Amino acid sequence: MESSTTLTKIAQEFGTPVYVYYEERLIQNYREFYSAFKKRYPSVKILYAYKANTSLALCNILKKEGAGADVVSGGELLTALKLGLEGKDIMYTNNSKTREEIGIALDAEAVINADSVVDLLMIQEEAAKKKKNAKISFRINPGVDPKTHAKIATGLKGSKFGVHIEGDDAFKAYKMATELGAIKVVGVQTHIGSQIKEVAPFVDAAEKVMEFALRLKTDLGLKLEYVDLGGGLGIPYQEEKTAKPEDLAAAVVPVLEKWNKLLGYAPALWLEPGRYLVASTGMVLTRVQTVKETPYKKFVNTDAGFNTLIRPAMYDAYHRIEIVGKEKEPNNEKYDVAGNVCESGDLFAKDRMLPKARAGDLLAIMDAGAYGYSMASRYNTRLMPPEVLIRSGGGYELIREREKLEDQYKYQRIPKDLQ
Amino acid sequence: MESSTTLTKIAQEFGTPVYVYYEERLIQNYREFYSAFKKRYPSVKILYAYKANTSLALCNILKKEGAGADVVSGGELLTALKLGLEGKDIMYTNNSKTREEIGIALDAEAVINADSVVDLLMIQEEAAKKKKNAKISFRINPGVDPKTHAKIATGLKGSKFGVHIEGDDAFKAYKMATELGAIKVVGVQTHIGSQIKEVAPFVDAAEKVMEFALRLKTDLGLKLEYVDLGGGLGIPYQEEKTAKPEDLAAAVVPVLEKWNKLLGYAPALWLEPGRYLVASTGMVLTRVQTVKETPYKKFVNTDAGFNTLIRPAMYDAYHRIEIVGKEKEPNNEKYDVAGNVCESGDLFAKDRMLPKARAGDLLAIMDAGAYGYSMASRYNTRLMPPEVLIRSGGGYELIREREKLEDQYKYQRIPKDLQ
Repeated sequence: MESSTTLTKIAQEFGTPVYVYYEERLIQNYREFYSAFKKRYPSVKILYAYKANTSLALCNILKKEGAGADVVSGGELLTALKLGLEGKDIMYTNNSKTREEIGIALDAEAVINADSVVDLLMIQEEAAKKKKNAKISFRINPGVDPKTHAKIATGLKGSKFGVHIEGDDAFKAYKMATELGAIKVVGVQTHIGSQIKEVAPFVDAAEKVMEFALRLKTDLGLKLEYVDLGGGLGIPYQEEKTAKPEDLAAAVVPVLEKWNKLLGYAPALWLEPGRYLVASTGMVLTRVQTVKETPYKKFVNTDAGFNTLIRPAMYDAYHRIEIVGKEKEPNNEKYDVAGNVCESGDLFAKDRMLPKARAGDLLAIMDAGAYGYSMASRYNTRLMPPEVLIRSGGGYELIREREKLEDQYKYQRIPKDLQ
Repeated sequence: MESSTTLTKIAQEFGTPVYVYYEERLIQNYREFYSAFKKRYPSVKILYAYKANTSLALCNILKKEGAGADVVSGGELLTALKLGLEGKDIMYTNNSKTREEIGIALDAEAVINADSVVDLLMIQEEAAKKKKNAKISFRINPGVDPKTHAKIATGLKGSKFGVHIEGDDAFKAYKMATELGAIKVVGVQTHIGSQIKEVAPFVDAAEKVMEFALRLKTDLGLKLEYVDLGGGLGIPYQEEKTAKPEDLAAAVVPVLEKWNKLLGYAPALWLEPGRYLVASTGMVLTRVQTVKETPYKKFVNTDAGFNTLIRPAMYDAYHRIEIVGKEKEPNNEKYDVAGNVCESGDLFAKDRMLPKARAGDLLAIMDAGAYGYSMASRYNTRLMPPEVLIRSGGGYELIREREKLEDQYKYQRIPKDLQ
């Protein structure tokens, strides 16, 4: 962790709660991920999963490193374009696209990842209207168990996502795509889930996807520009052993190479990391308001809540917590670290061993760079928090101001007779 | 439900997803709640729990009906003041108050509901600084099991909220309060949870609170202005049998009357309904984008997501769903109703029987007036939705515009060297 002096200064200058990110760590994570694959495979493209964290400064750092964008909405797509990304480096993927969003993707010449044959037909119609060729892949559901939290396992049989290999659905979808005038098939995509800690599910998925690519070659004569294995690599929130990009690349690339011999060509490998790149680069700084003792528990009450960081309340997620400046003190006290939202489930940690906490202490809720700010809300009429970037060259900069209460009134109207 | 013509017009005019509320239902709910108690007990005050829905138009309707405000943050407190509520009709309650928020409450002369003795001492300090008397109650934890979802059960032993009757903690807290110069004790408060469907837990809580009030009288000579039994009355999301305000009042008022005889006085009864007042007044209208079939399931894909309405994804909450204009068709098809967020857990309903759905259909996700808009987020770079009020006199009005993508960029800054 950065020197406690810097964090203390940031908290004083911008108030709490505040998101703080490390530029250097972000760049390191990206390079670690990219090079693990690039040194093993000739053509690799990293599409950063914007949904993990769409803060413009962070997205721009990744763009400068060479990352494209995996976007799931019109808003994310327009954000990628705003930052100057080109359509060829953007994949728009979603289970429930609107025609308007498809239109934006077509105008940008982004790759569109179709989710079903009905989705495909909608893309065909919109492309035909615009007299464009839609570059598409399908998200295929390989029926692989990613061994992660049920809410974020996406490749299971009952999932809402993708066309299933089973029942030959995926093949039929591709066959239909080759027969449509405004559609150009360019790849195949899968994404089996999020926060996956082992390589085995990725290997399973790669095997199924590559076998399917061979089927497309053999039966439809399709040569794909890319095979996209999605994202989902986990991070060690509890400092547990998790697969690293090196492990993932070492396990998955040989699968591609094996099948490429049968394919007779080598499609580019696309990957969509989100959490792995940004989670460990960020933290929430929050101020202890009171330390409270009940007959049953001790509570550290903070000025953040699940409006700030929803993962613990929503997914029972574990985040390491440090008391800034007390990193070397022994963890002798057992606390529930509570948020300030008026719900019992608003706890950042239960029965967590920490150094003795006092009102005024600054807590760092670690690994909050992914699905932190991007999932934050105004619940309880709280203000969307500021974000600060600790620069790799030293110093820090505000990359997002705290919003103002007026922003929450801005679009509201009270009918005249009710005023 | 309103005529499908009106809902169709609203969806066309303002786009989807959109929150729609019925003014008439809101007024009915309020009057039902208030009169159930008022006809049984001389002094009743309803503090509407702003966190359920803080839309200004709805808050103002309730203010006009006579409701005060139960607020949990500085933002909610300032909103109540903005609408012209007086401090005497506002209770500020929170487990983790900031000194700044306490200051706002003191300036407004709102009642402050203390959560612990450390909280009390902070209130005392801030009040002394301002040379004010803080009017306070304590939230007491009666150790009652409300038999509801764990995330919203607040009166249990391990809860972060309140001072426990057990261990005499609550009594000691009140004793301390009477000894502090800038504190005026005016009441006692409890809140045992949310979405409670039976009256028994409320009766248990009332018994414990009133017994405690007697103890305060006997041992400290305290005469309270009010006893606040909080909120928590559930609504029939699945059209199941739930306790109504009539049932609650009929069960709880006799408890007060019994203890009042021993007390020798009759404190006012304060109540803090949120969900009961607003949940049934609102719905989310969302447009079906595609209807998708996999080998395992049929999905209705909508243009809303858990960013719009988080209750199903976060609390496994059930919401009735109707297809607008098909209310009388038989429910012959089994669907998962999916949101457009890129997470598997983003489903509004699983295995739900509905009439046959088609792309373009308008779905009404019912009973979404509470913890709907107030918990909404921009996750996936989605825009905060508009809100429309169907007027009791006929017609409808936009009470909140859809935000613009620019609003999400407004406070962001990209460091110069990263641009």
